[in-house]
Amino acid sequence: ARQGLPEVVYGSGKTPEQVVGIVRTLLRHNDGPVLVTRVEPEVAEFVLAAVPDGVYDGGARLLVWRPAEPGGFGVVVASAGTADLPVAREAAAVAGAVGLGVTTVTDVGVAGLHRLLAEQERLSTADTVIVVAGMEGALASAIGGLVACPVVAVPTSTGYGAGLEGITALLAMHASCAAGITVVNIDSGFGAAMAAFRLARVVGRRTA
Amino acid sequence: ARQGLPEVVYGSGKTPEQVVGIVRTLLRHNDGPVLVTRVEPEVAEFVLAAVPDGVYDGGARLLVWRPAEPGGFGVVVASAGTADLPVAREAAAVAGAVGLGVTTVTDVGVAGLHRLLAEQERLSTADTVIVVAGMEGALASAIGGLVACPVVAVPTSTGYGAGLEGITALLAMHASCAAGITVVNIDSGFGAAMAAFRLARVVGRRTA
Amino acid sequence: ARQGLPEVVYGSGKTPEQVVGIVRTLLRHNDGPVLVTRVEPEVAEFVLAAVPDGVYDGGARLLVWRPAEPGGFGVVVASAGTADLPVAREAAAVAGAVGLGVTTVTDVGVAGLHRLLAEQERLSTADTVIVVAGMEGALASAIGGLVACPVVAVPTSTGYGAGLEGITALLAMHASCAAGITVVNIDSGFGAAMAAFRLARVVGRRTA
Amino acid sequence: ARQGLPEVVYGSGKTPEQVVGIVRTLLRHNDGPVLVTRVEPEVAEFVLAAVPDGVYDGGARLLVWRPAEPGGFGVVVASAGTADLPVAREAAAVAGAVGLGVTTVTDVGVAGLHRLLAEQERLSTADTVIVVAGMEGALASAIGGLVACPVVAVPTSTGYGAGLEGITALLAMHASCAAGITVVNIDSGFGAAMAAFRLARVVGRRTA
Amino acid sequence: ARQGLPEVVYGSGKTPEQVVGIVRTLLRHNDGPVLVTRVEPEVAEFVLAAVPDGVYDGGARLLVWRPAEPGGFGVVVASAGTADLPVAREAAAVAGAVGLGVTTVTDVGVAGLHRLLAEQERLSTADTVIVVAGMEGALASAIGGLVACPVVAVPTSTGYGAGLEGITALLAMHASCAAGITVVNIDSGFGAAMAAFRLARVVGRRTA
Amino acid sequence: ARQGLPEVVYGSGKTPEQVVGIVRTLLRHNDGPVLVTRVEPEVAEFVLAAVPDGVYDGGARLLVWRPAEPGGFGVVVASAGTADLPVAREAAAVAGAVGLGVTTVTDVGVAGLHRLLAEQERLSTADTVIVVAGMEGALASAIGGLVACPVVAVPTSTGYGAGLEGITALLAMHASCAAGITVVNIDSGFGAAMAAFRLARVVGRRTA
Amino acid sequence: ARQGLPEVVYGSGKTPEQVVGIVRTLLRHNDGPVLVTRVEPEVAEFVLAAVPDGVYDGGARLLVWRPAEPGGFGVVVASAGTADLPVAREAAAVAGAVGLGVTTVTDVGVAGLHRLLAEQERLSTADTVIVVAGMEGALASAIGGLVACPVVAVPTSTGYGAGLEGITALLAMHASCAAGITVVNIDSGFGAAMAAFRLARVVGRRTA
Amino acid sequence: ARQGLPEVVYGSGKTPEQVVGIVRTLLRHNDGPVLVTRVEPEVAEFVLAAVPDGVYDGGARLLVWRPAEPGGFGVVVASAGTADLPVAREAAAVAGAVGLGVTTVTDVGVAGLHRLLAEQERLSTADTVIVVAGMEGALASAIGGLVACPVVAVPTSTGYGAGLEGITALLAMHASCAAGITVVNIDSGFGAAMAAFRLARVVGRRTA
Ligand SMILES: Nc1ncnc2c1ncn2[C@@H]1O[C@H](COP(=O)(O)O)[C@@H](O)[C@H]1O
Ligand SMILES: Nc1ncnc2c1ncn2[C@@H]1O[C@H](COP(=O)(O)O)[C@@H](O)[C@H]1O
Ligand SMILES: Nc1ncnc2c1ncn2[C@@H]1O[C@H](COP(=O)(O)O)[C@@H](O)[C@H]1O
Ligand SMILES: Nc1ncnc2c1ncn2[C@@H]1O[C@H](COP(=O)(O)O)[C@@H](O)[C@H]1O
Ligand SMILES: [Mg+2]
Ligand SMILES: [Mg+2]
Ligand SMILES: [Mg+2]
Ligand SMILES: [Mg+2]
Ligand SMILES: [Mg+2]
Ligand SMILES: [Mg+2]
Ligand SMILES: [Mg+2]
Ligand SMILES: [Mg+2]
Repeated sequence: ARQGLPEVVYGSGKTPEQVVGIVRTLLRHNDGPVLVTRVEPEVAEFVLAAVPDGVYDGGARLLVWRPAEPGGFGVVVASAGTADLPVAREAAAVAGAVGLGVTTVTDVGVAGLHRLLAEQERLSTADTVIVVAGMEGALASAIGGLVACPVVAVPTSTGYGAGLEGITALLAMHASCAAGITVVNIDSGFGAAMAAFRLARVVGRRTA
Repeated sequence: ARQGLPEVVYGSGKTPEQVVGIVRTLLRHNDGPVLVTRVEPEVAEFVLAAVPDGVYDGGARLLVWRPAEPGGFGVVVASAGTADLPVAREAAAVAGAVGLGVTTVTDVGVAGLHRLLAEQERLSTADTVIVVAGMEGALASAIGGLVACPVVAVPTSTGYGAGLEGITALLAMHASCAAGITVVNIDSGFGAAMAAFRLARVVGRRTA
Repeated sequence: ARQGLPEVVYGSGKTPEQVVGIVRTLLRHNDGPVLVTRVEPEVAEFVLAAVPDGVYDGGARLLVWRPAEPGGFGVVVASAGTADLPVAREAAAVAGAVGLGVTTVTDVGVAGLHRLLAEQERLSTADTVIVVAGMEGALASAIGGLVACPVVAVPTSTGYGAGLEGITALLAMHASCAAGITVVNIDSGFGAAMAAFRLARVVGRRTA
Repeated sequence: ARQGLPEVVYGSGKTPEQVVGIVRTLLRHNDGPVLVTRVEPEVAEFVLAAVPDGVYDGGARLLVWRPAEPGGFGVVVASAGTADLPVAREAAAVAGAVGLGVTTVTDVGVAGLHRLLAEQERLSTADTVIVVAGMEGALASAIGGLVACPVVAVPTSTGYGAGLEGITALLAMHASCAAGITVVNIDSGFGAAMAAFRLARVVGRRTA
Repeated sequence: ARQGLPEVVYGSGKTPEQVVGIVRTLLRHNDGPVLVTRVEPEVAEFVLAAVPDGVYDGGARLLVWRPAEPGGFGVVVASAGTADLPVAREAAAVAGAVGLGVTTVTDVGVAGLHRLLAEQERLSTADTVIVVAGMEGALASAIGGLVACPVVAVPTSTGYGAGLEGITALLAMHASCAAGITVVNIDSGFGAAMAAFRLARVVGRRTA
Repeated sequence: ARQGLPEVVYGSGKTPEQVVGIVRTLLRHNDGPVLVTRVEPEVAEFVLAAVPDGVYDGGARLLVWRPAEPGGFGVVVASAGTADLPVAREAAAVAGAVGLGVTTVTDVGVAGLHRLLAEQERLSTADTVIVVAGMEGALASAIGGLVACPVVAVPTSTGYGAGLEGITALLAMHASCAAGITVVNIDSGFGAAMAAFRLARVVGRRTA
Repeated sequence: ARQGLPEVVYGSGKTPEQVVGIVRTLLRHNDGPVLVTRVEPEVAEFVLAAVPDGVYDGGARLLVWRPAEPGGFGVVVASAGTADLPVAREAAAVAGAVGLGVTTVTDVGVAGLHRLLAEQERLSTADTVIVVAGMEGALASAIGGLVACPVVAVPTSTGYGAGLEGITALLAMHASCAAGITVVNIDSGFGAAMAAFRLARVVGRRTA
Repeated sequence: ARQGLPEVVYGSGKTPEQVVGIVRTLLRHNDGPVLVTRVEPEVAEFVLAAVPDGVYDGGARLLVWRPAEPGGFGVVVASAGTADLPVAREAAAVAGAVGLGVTTVTDVGVAGLHRLLAEQERLSTADTVIVVAGMEGALASAIGGLVACPVVAVPTSTGYGAGLEGITALLAMHASCAAGITVVNIDSGFGAAMAAFRLARVVGRRTA
């Protein structure tokens, strides 16, 4: 695709027929991976029947054709609570499909610091950590203080009341006391994976 | 004072003369502690000259007459960053003046978890922890997960940008994944100390 | 469970099968009470059929296994209007299930002060008052001025328009002119009950 | 002035010379009262020197020429805390200058219900109650439940943090559980007085 | 009912059985009008079948028993657009049921000033004008400048985008350049009618 | 300058030396008008001394070199209150300096409809009306309904409380019931004048 | 219609019968175009059956009777992403129906500048550009810098999270660094078309 | 220091004496660079006199001791307008002091696309681009579409009105249609530089 990023279609709000049309065009015009995010199961079924050789990841709501070979850049996707899992899965599945090496660490909310610290070694081997956390989003600060690699934080719209559908977590992650963590849009596992892809690409270029 | 709470005057926005008048009346009408919060040094000097036997704590901006005897109820005031110190000092000074036993733990922001964990033992002896934290307010969640005693969180207006003058920390503390922590108004060290006083009073009544 | 708090599962957004799995694990790994909040009737039916000896409280949308013996710590749950009742019931049911003594006082909104004052004696015997109020949340200030024990305020998302789904009540309770009242998240009867549990635990420890 | 309302100039942001010019014009073109609100002392001095027969009320920051004769319509201005007094004074002074009978009741915040109830008789004689309250604005609901006459609530920008410069009180007053209370702009003692004037005018017309 | 206001039940969120129960109690305990607002047709049918002699106004979604005799106090309910009609109808129906004389003026948005001015005479005879307007709420300012009687503005949640579900109209009405207009909650035709009732009661008392 | 718009420098926050440098460069690189907005008097004096042939309009805080010849495109700048005048002056002065024909209409707030209607003829001759109004911004709707030419609305940050520094007026103007009015940024008289310039340019091109 | 603007009915929230009634009246009382916006297909079918000679544009959700002859005024409707198309279609269809010449340019989001620049020639021929863009709304700034004709920006409610249902795009378009662009309400393709119509009318008048 | 990030002190709100103390301690306890951000000139003078061998960058308000050797990792700092320069300078100075190679590109706002495109080659050589832009923040989207390397966006608090002190730019950058760009706090040139440092460290580790 343009400037070297993979082709990713935003599936939400498109008809199955529209998705089929766009995917076919993308598959024809280049030879890298083609992804569709935010795809409900019924839509996936229709599209897969029409465009061969695709794979659907229901937990991530992701369709993939021609996934990239896994490279050596290691991403850890860490998430706080059960409700954050769908977003973590989108991040992990997109990252995997574009050729990053993905490890997942779940259920490490800051209200259970010892579970988080038990993962410290795994976190320290990461080339990038994607932190997925809703409610107060505190996990981003905690992990930002534990590792020195890039940290991409994804606020999620989980929780109720004062969580303001993810706005609170987004603002809190920006106000974080941990230096140099960056943030993407609410619920955007996709955005975090693409940010990691950009990082991996630089490392690849520099180490080539 | 009415219903058994100590008399505390909100000093901000009152003239020195008004403060003198109110303090004199309160000292005359009951025999417990009398406090004035948010008092600038020049105002304090004027008032202390007019009303004998008071003490001014500049770091906490607090005036006190007839402080209570320290009792057995132990409050730990934990704060995250340097900028949170004035609020932590208000909480500690008010709590001390109304008879609570106060310990302070500073510089334990969640971006430095190991410093926080080094204080775990001290935290576990507390009857109540007051957590003072601005920016993303994550410290409240972390401590809420470390201790089982009451946790009163005070969001502070420190930081800039996405911190929204403390609103982000306030919302984040409410959205916290740690169960049963409670929150008071932004920068209200006073409010947290009074909440601890209410707790101590119940314990006192029950153990009397 | 960890740090001595009871195990409470947040039921909303989990499949019946997930709830069954989590409850079974929790029952096996410790011997205290196990609760699931925000459970719709159909989910409750499914889970109760799969995990014996549980009880469902429909008004509170709460599932309980192995409720604690009622202890001597007395919580009064006071609520303002009819629409606040479901949240008040969640607070009361969780508090009861974890071993607190619960009394309820309903329909004491501040627009009917004489009804509220008629309950003053009952309020004054409380070890903690949980105030559940939506709209303008004024009940928290009024009760905070009537009692000297801890007051935990729960803003509710009732009402329309300027109530902003509970944000107005949450902010108003924080801005309250009553000293030392604390606040939990919007509609979080659960959070208020856990705050009361934390205090009861301190009393228990001090009187043991 | 037009439609029968008194002439009131908004002084804030106008130069002393501008105020003098406007007041002179208004005095010439009709024969009712002429008021200027939000006038600082130095401006007042300059204007009074230039336009004879005016009176300045410093507490209300109000300039008045040709005040109306006091009529029989009775307004009670009730305020919650010390910080609400300047707004209460503006309401009272404007109401008095346009011919309403004014009584003031101060320091009746809802955290001290018994002080409020001690004023119930005085409140019940009012033709209209103006309630001035900041912070959580709960006083409007409480008084709305005590009296059956019109209640005009003025939120004030007092307090800090969650009070949001009066926005919280404004929203809370609108969400109030007391039926039929109305609200004017933040800190607008002027607006409340004019609302009362409109009502008095109807009464006057009906009893004429 | 208490303090002399009519009994009005908020129907939204109550089961038909609850409404029946409350209405029966109210009818028994006093002899004035009993109203239920926000009642959907099916609920109304059920309740009317159970409690005799009630009347349902579908356009206003209002149930009424024992309506008051129409008195001499004249309310004009003016509304801006088609979408504001349901709220205007609630205001008019409640006002009528509690004994006020009601006239309605519709389709007088400020984008059509000449239609508004054509109603000026009718407006000038009012004892109170209730202005119902959404979008930018400008009608309140315009009418506030045309009449000298009390103006009660009701912002509505009509429109889309920048209207913010009525918040924009509510704020705009408060910021209005017309002196002495007052505002009630978004969509609260009920609140405006009760405010008018309070006004009528004073006039009645003064002219009795 | 680029694409045919006049060169306008935003003066706020620039040092006098920076302004001098930029103006000199612009005067050298093209031969149209050069303007600097938001210039305080002292800065203006310094700059005028350094760059000959400029003119300062203090009421509009505008510096101009090489103003354009007045063309035939007629702009009426209508403003609501006294406090809106500085923004109206900026709009008028910029429009004049770039060659539009400017008429001003002041003090036509919607709370005084008859004054507004008295200007209807003048408004109807306009090629474009710029409406400058703060508080509730209702004037934009009213004028939008009176004329069929383009209407560019400028919300101002005047007023206090619910006006939210101009945000309320901005939102209200967008939610306006008058079809086809457009809006520019708060206090941006400059933006409105440039919008008018763009309109005039099309007319010029089409009628050339 | 009044002041020379075409008659456009807002279809949302009206019953098919209401629409039929209004359209019949409008067709009878004048002889210009009659439009209904925001019409769902089923409603359209009903109305077309009842009122002859109308046409429904499903993509724009628009009903039209007696469309105007296409005039010489050229509007380019440029949109950023797939999700912005329905709003772009409303703008284009309304503009066409009231007699403007319409060209559409799609898929020119700022993340693909070269596609945008490829359309620069087409944009430069426009008499007015309507820019339809959601998410961050950056397209308005980019096009505002490319053309010197009037630019009317329509923020859309597309996207998720930080897009705040279009509020972010609306604010961003106002804060734009491109001089003289104007903005209409979120999703209001209708509003933008009417703004263009107002300008075309001036051109028409001037060239008549 | 801890986890391998450089030591950076937040200077705002600290007394000169406090800064001296902290800097001395940091210089003693490790041997990497020591930085202090947000330092006003007078404070800098005092601190430099007390702690030898430091350097002050007034444009960036930064104090540095023991800057790192410039490494091979190339950061381009691109900024939109004049008002964004101080933040861009902070980003560039911090990045340089911690050993990154820094190039700056200024005055490339999206309203002047051709100036931006003229820098495309320089942008394409970057290992990371830091985009500093206020107002509507559109530059982040545009650059995100031009390069495939990591893009770290810094919203600035420049502009007025609808810019909401940087909140609009922050939200807009998150809602951006460019995939994989990340965002840091408003005005946080420091945060962006640290994010770049984290990435450079991974590259260093991978190429070591
Ligand atoms: N889940 C997602 N969230 C946000 N943007 C996405 C997502 N999936 C794909 N995109 C972006 O959407 C753009 C395509 O939008 P569209 O033209 O509507 O398919 C792609 O360039 C992606 O950058
Ligand atoms: N720092 C503070 N923050 C909030 N409330 C306070 C503070 N200090 C004292 N107060 C409260 O202010 C009330 C007195 O207010 P006032 O009548 O204005 O002196 C007391 O009842 C205290 O509860
Ligand atoms: N304190 C006040 N707050 C709000 N509006 C006021 C105030 N004082 C006077 N006004 C109004 O401001 C209008 C006069 O504004 P101006 O033309 O600026 O003097 C009068 O019609 C009053 O309705
Ligand atoms: N899509 C739309 N968005 C906003 N306003 C509209 C729309 N369509 C029509 N209108 C306006 O709605 C007014 C008619 O409203 P109504 O009386 O409810 O039919 C017309 O004067 C139009 O200006
Ligand atoms: Mg979380
Ligand atoms: Mg902190
Ligand atoms: Mg309530
Ligand atoms: Mg108060
Ligand atoms: Mg309207
Ligand atoms: Mg105005
Ligand atoms: Mg877009
Ligand atoms: Mg910019």
